[in-house]
Formats: sequence, structure tokens, C-alpha cells
Amino acid sequence: MLIVQKYGGTSVGSLERIEKVARRVARSKDDGNELVVVVSAMSGETNKLIEYAHHFSRTPSKREMDILLSSGERVTASLLAIALQEMGYDAIAMTGRQAGIKTDDSHTYARIESIKTEALTRELEKGRIVIVAGFQGISESGNVTTLGRGGSDLSAVALAGALKADACEIYSDVDGIYTTDPRIEPKARKLDFISYDEMLELSSLGAKVLQNRSVELAKKMGVRIVAKSSFSDSEGTIIAQEDEKMEAVLVSGIALDKNQARVSLRDLPDRPGIAAEIFDRLAKEQINVDMIIQNASREGMTNLGFTVPQSELARAAKVIESTGHKIGSADYDENVCKVSVVGVGMKSHSGIAAEAFKALASNNINIEMISTSEIKISMIIDEKFGELAVRVLHEVYELDK
Amino acid sequence: MLIVQKYGGTSVGSLERIEKVARRVARSKDDGNELVVVVSAMSGETNKLIEYAHHFSRTPSKREMDILLSSGERVTASLLAIALQEMGYDAIAMTGRQAGIKTDDSHTYARIESIKTEALTRELEKGRIVIVAGFQGISESGNVTTLGRGGSDLSAVALAGALKADACEIYSDVDGIYTTDPRIEPKARKLDFISYDEMLELSSLGAKVLQNRSVELAKKMGVRIVAKSSFSDSEGTIIAQEDEKMEAVLVSGIALDKNQARVSLRDLPDRPGIAAEIFDRLAKEQINVDMIIQNASREGMTNLGFTVPQSELARAAKVIESTGHKIGSADYDENVCKVSVVGVGMKSHSGIAAEAFKALASNNINIEMISTSEIKISMIIDEKFGELAVRVLHEVYELDK
Repeated sequence: MLIVQKYGGTSVGSLERIEKVARRVARSKDDGNELVVVVSAMSGETNKLIEYAHHFSRTPSKREMDILLSSGERVTASLLAIALQEMGYDAIAMTGRQAGIKTDDSHTYARIESIKTEALTRELEKGRIVIVAGFQGISESGNVTTLGRGGSDLSAVALAGALKADACEIYSDVDGIYTTDPRIEPKARKLDFISYDEMLELSSLGAKVLQNRSVELAKKMGVRIVAKSSFSDSEGTIIAQEDEKMEAVLVSGIALDKNQARVSLRDLPDRPGIAAEIFDRLAKEQINVDMIIQNASREGMTNLGFTVPQSELARAAKVIESTGHKIGSADYDENVCKVSVVGVGMKSHSGIAAEAFKALASNNINIEMISTSEIKISMIIDEKFGELAVRVLHEVYELDK
Repeated sequence: MLIVQKYGGTSVGSLERIEKVARRVARSKDDGNELVVVVSAMSGETNKLIEYAHHFSRTPSKREMDILLSSGERVTASLLAIALQEMGYDAIAMTGRQAGIKTDDSHTYARIESIKTEALTRELEKGRIVIVAGFQGISESGNVTTLGRGGSDLSAVALAGALKADACEIYSDVDGIYTTDPRIEPKARKLDFISYDEMLELSSLGAKVLQNRSVELAKKMGVRIVAKSSFSDSEGTIIAQEDEKMEAVLVSGIALDKNQARVSLRDLPDRPGIAAEIFDRLAKEQINVDMIIQNASREGMTNLGFTVPQSELARAAKVIESTGHKIGSADYDENVCKVSVVGVGMKSHSGIAAEAFKALASNNINIEMISTSEIKISMIIDEKFGELAVRVLHEVYELDK
């Protein structure tokens, strides 16, 4: 099999850990696999370099930041190659440029435009293990670029897609995706399998493992991801296209997001364009709006509710007050959280939302806002009930079974 | 003027020092100069990376070492560019590749083959200060290469040559070239000017400032070097072609090399090829031979003397004993040193050597071996008289004046 492996910063956080990674890579090679291994910078290195830059400037130029930050992954890549060579394996380190990763010119958050796999393929054909410095590429104009947060995952997924690899194994200090946060519900169970779409909706559960950007790319390129721990030998979680032949699991997981604040605007004039104007102003202030619900109230009036990150509530309030529209009343609440139930089974099964509402009600948890998608039900509730709600829902859908 | 500046590891050894370098660069820009600035890695960084590699292997692969080691200079280059931008200067960082430094494929000690100055010139024409990561280049096959010890100086000199710069300022923690080591002779005087050839012969005096490889390249490309301290504003020493119009100084400096051991072979058969065979074997064992003198002894016999580094004397003795030639007697002495008097004036003035011999004799210092070149007289003496000899010769040639 052709496998792309990716090891995160914690997995290569010390020389001893790099040695362990080398042994893991070697074992996979011994199993007869062809291997491309993408590595992050040693944990702490990137932050150290950012601090260095901030010593000189609060807004360092992005082009120079990319030359700076791309150095960390090169260190890890060359060290891992050296470790493997010492163990008697034929390994070669490659920078993002050498691995053929072409990006656009958006420094510090560049997008991969294409991957020229010739050099990689040539080395693989020689039987070599190819170690690639993650997080980086080269733009058409020859500048070094970096891919932003989670960039090494993105490198790995893109390489797996371009090489048509059989799997992309993402190693971190977490051994997979769980039905919910085990710190909240100790009965949380590791999932063997989760679809791309569920993973995207459960991003808070998988945030430590894989960012949405990489899941989206994997979905687009059809890359089968295996999220595994580099500190254990457990199986991990497969993230792939939902299998139409298998009966879909009704609910895959429960996510809790405590970084939410609710804005409720009552009795707004129900005229076209008012909601648009409010969200446009919020967007210009770079305030991220998450859930949005709107419904009619009295005649000619409407109610508009939405959530923003807690840290942005004060700014959001200012924006709203400056719109100059006649608003019946504006109500802001920081003490809320969002509980989400996710599962592809919802597409074909009804009644799943009703079960959630009933379960919360029977525990006297009031639901302030509801928003649903094809595979997700999100509910805004009082923040203090967040953990309880997760446990109740985990139980209702029998996720520990 | 178009000036290439180069700052060594100590000069950029901390964030505070990088800031000082930025101010110095800015001042030169304010003076109306066009600037290309070459930087080394922060002091200690390269050694740290080498230690990392040695954790995994005693003989890490050179190709991977180059990816590893080239990262340090990139960090400094981007930080310096960021510092200058924050001060309001238009600066841009470039890797060795981006600066157009093409090398051969000899990893860890690559030779610069050519410099494509288009990108550099384009940025200079925009009025930008160009900061180049020293010590590195790119080979024809697209691999990252490094230039070996003193590599950043080499980058600077090569760039100055290719750009036809008016000067190449090499900044270190030493403020120039002295007539001798001031720790030995406090009256040692900083030279305003020294020719390439003298500098090459006085390499031990300039070793902390500039390695021979860079001086040779400067001579070849006609690059005027100014060796300066980044910690003071003193004038520094100009290293350039000797000026034919000026009357040459008789003696420029006195060098002492204590890392010498003497080998004396007496009564060797005086047949062609014997000396050649001995030196060939030493070369194959990678033992560096410095001074060599040979003269006839009794009829059909010859005496052969040479020096090797002290650390290689034991190995040299083994090689000699294994030649199988009949050697009258072999005498090895670790307790010697080499004192050299250097000056382009010797070319046209006689009697300089005699003065040296007389001065040492009158201080009861016995000369064990003598070797002379056009601009240098080297003498092997008892190690314990080394410092005394330097002071005596410094006085004789009035170098403190």
C-alpha cells in the first residue's frame, strides 16, 4: 500500500520522540508499504519563532514570516530522515518546494494550487521513504509560503490525494475521534469510523486531531484519513465517505461549544435587507456569526437571533447599536453554550430531533435556540447545563454501546 | 555606493543584537547606500542543530544536514528584514536560492558556481534593502546546499563580486586585522590596510575575521573587503589588492601558530620518489603537512623535515614507520611552534629575513626550521619561546608605530 503518514508537533516534540516516530515509520516500511511521511515542527518551535518576530513587530510582514516559520519543519524532516538512515532505511528529506507543493501567493495562509508529484514518485520508485517538511510550499513567483494553522495536515492530505495514496494516517497525541469529550462523559467511546460530513459538523470534537480545512480537502480529493495516536498502537478512527451499503449509524457524536454568546433582537422592522445589513457590518468587523435564526413576531415585525464567539460579544453589541435601526429590544447573553447532535442517519430517520428535545426537557434544560442541518441538530442552552446535556444526549442515543 | 554587508553569528546572537544590526543597516541606508545584507545563523544555533543530528547518527547524511543547517540563516534573515520594516525601511528577506546562489552538488562544503543576480538587482532597483540568508545555495538538481565553515563570508564576497559592489563589509566581534595577536603583544596595532596575499599568509591573525577561502575568492573577483566590528564604530581594516602606487609596508604582521609538531627524518636514501611516497601516504591518511624542508646530509643521504598539526603527530609517526624505508633516525617534537613574519615589502626589499634571524638569536631563541615565500618568513622554534619571539619581532619591525 502507498501510505502518507503525518506526525504532529507533539509527536516529534523531542529527539527521543523523533526516534520513536522513526521506529514507527520503519515498522510500516517493514510491512511492505510505500511511505511518504509529513512532519510538523517540534512542538514549541513555531511559537518560539513567532515570539521572536513579535519582538520586532506586532504586525511582521507575512512574506518574511513564511521564510521564518517554514524553517521548523525542515529541521524535523531532516532529523527524521537521518534517524531512519541510521537504522538502515533508505530515506530522503524534502522541503515543501522539493515535494512539488505549489501554492498561491497568500503568505501565512496560502492555498495549495497543485502538487507536482514527479520528484516524489521518482524517490518512491527507488524504494525510498520520503520525508516531507509539512506546512509549506512555494508560490509561482518562487516565494516560500506557509499554509496556516493545521497546515501540515493539509500537506499530508494534499500529497495523499495527488499520489492517490491508499490512506493518509494522521498521528497526534489523541488516538481518534470520540462520541463526545471524554472529560465530560467518561463513557465516551472511540469511533471506528466517521464520515467527512459528520467530522465537519463535529469539528470541536476533532479539533485537536484535524481541522475542518483538511477534512474538506480530504472529502474533495477522496482521501481516506486514519486518525491515530503516535503514543499507542490502538486502531484509531477512519474518516472517509459514508458507505452507502452499510446502514448508517443514527448518531455519531455529541459536541459541546462553550465559547458562544447569544444575541436576540426582538421586534425588528420586517423589511428586506435589514438582517443582511447587520450581518454585513458584523462581517466587516470580522466578527464570526455562527447560528442564525429568524422568525416573525407581531405583524410587520421580526425576531432575529444569532450567536457569536464570547470574546466578540461586546464588539457585536456596539455594531448593532450603531446600525440606527429601530429595534424593539436587544438582549445579549454570554452564559450560553451550544450542544450539537451529529449523525448521517438523520438524513433518513425522523424523530431524532424530537428525542433530543424530550430528553433535555425531562431534565429541565430549557432550549433557547434551535438550528438544524441535514445531519446536525444544534441547541443553545444555559451554559451551566452544557455538560449535563452532553451526558443526557450521549445516553439517549446509546453512544456508549 | 552599493555595499554588501555581512553579519556573523555573534553579531546576530540575540534579538537585541539583531536590533542593533538593524539600526546599523538603517544608518548605512540613510547615508544613501544601496544595501545587500548577508547574515549568519544566531550564534549557537548551528551547533545546536549539529548536536541534534549527532543524537541520531555519528555520520549523518550530508544532503539532509544541508536542509537542517540552512534553516538557521533563514531565521536571522527574516527577523532582520522584519526589524527593518518595523523601522520604516523597505526590506526583503531572501533565501540562498532566491538570491540566485547556484552551487555544485558537494553537500556541506558546496562551491558557488554562479550567481544569478536578476532577482537581487530587481529588488535593489525598487530601493529595497535585500537581506540574504548566508551559508547556503541551491544545486542544479534543486537540492539545498551549504558552503561549509565561513560560508556566510563566502556568500557575501560572491554576491559583492557578482553585483560589482563598491565594498563588502564583514562585521564580526573583532574590529579588524592586527599586526599580531594583542593578547600576546599589547602594543599590537590595528592595520588600516592589508593586501589579499598578506591576509592569506596571516590567516591565523585573521581567522576569527575571515577564512582563507573568502579572501581567495575576494582576490579572484577583486572584491574590496572591509573587516569591521558590529559592536563599535571604529574604522576597521581594508583587505584589497596591494596598491602599486603606494610604497608597500615592509612588514604587516607577525603570526604565531602553536598547533604545530615537527617531524625530522635524518639520513634518508636520497633517491627520487621517496619524499613523494611519504607525503602521498600522509595525504591519503588526511594528515595536513604544512612546512616542508629538505637538504642533503652525507653523501647519497638526505634530511627531510616537515610539520603537521599536533593532534596528527601520532598518526603521522605510524605512517612513517610503516613505509619500510631505511631511515637513519626519526625525531618527533610536539613542543614547537611556528612564528611567521609577513609583508609584501619583502618582494622588493632584502635583509628582512636576516633581521628576524638576528633578533631571535640575540634573545637566545634557536630556529629549528626555516621556510620562506615571496612575502613570508616562517620559523619553527621551541614552543615556550613563541610569545617572546612574537614580541621581539613586533619590536624589530616597529609594528607598533
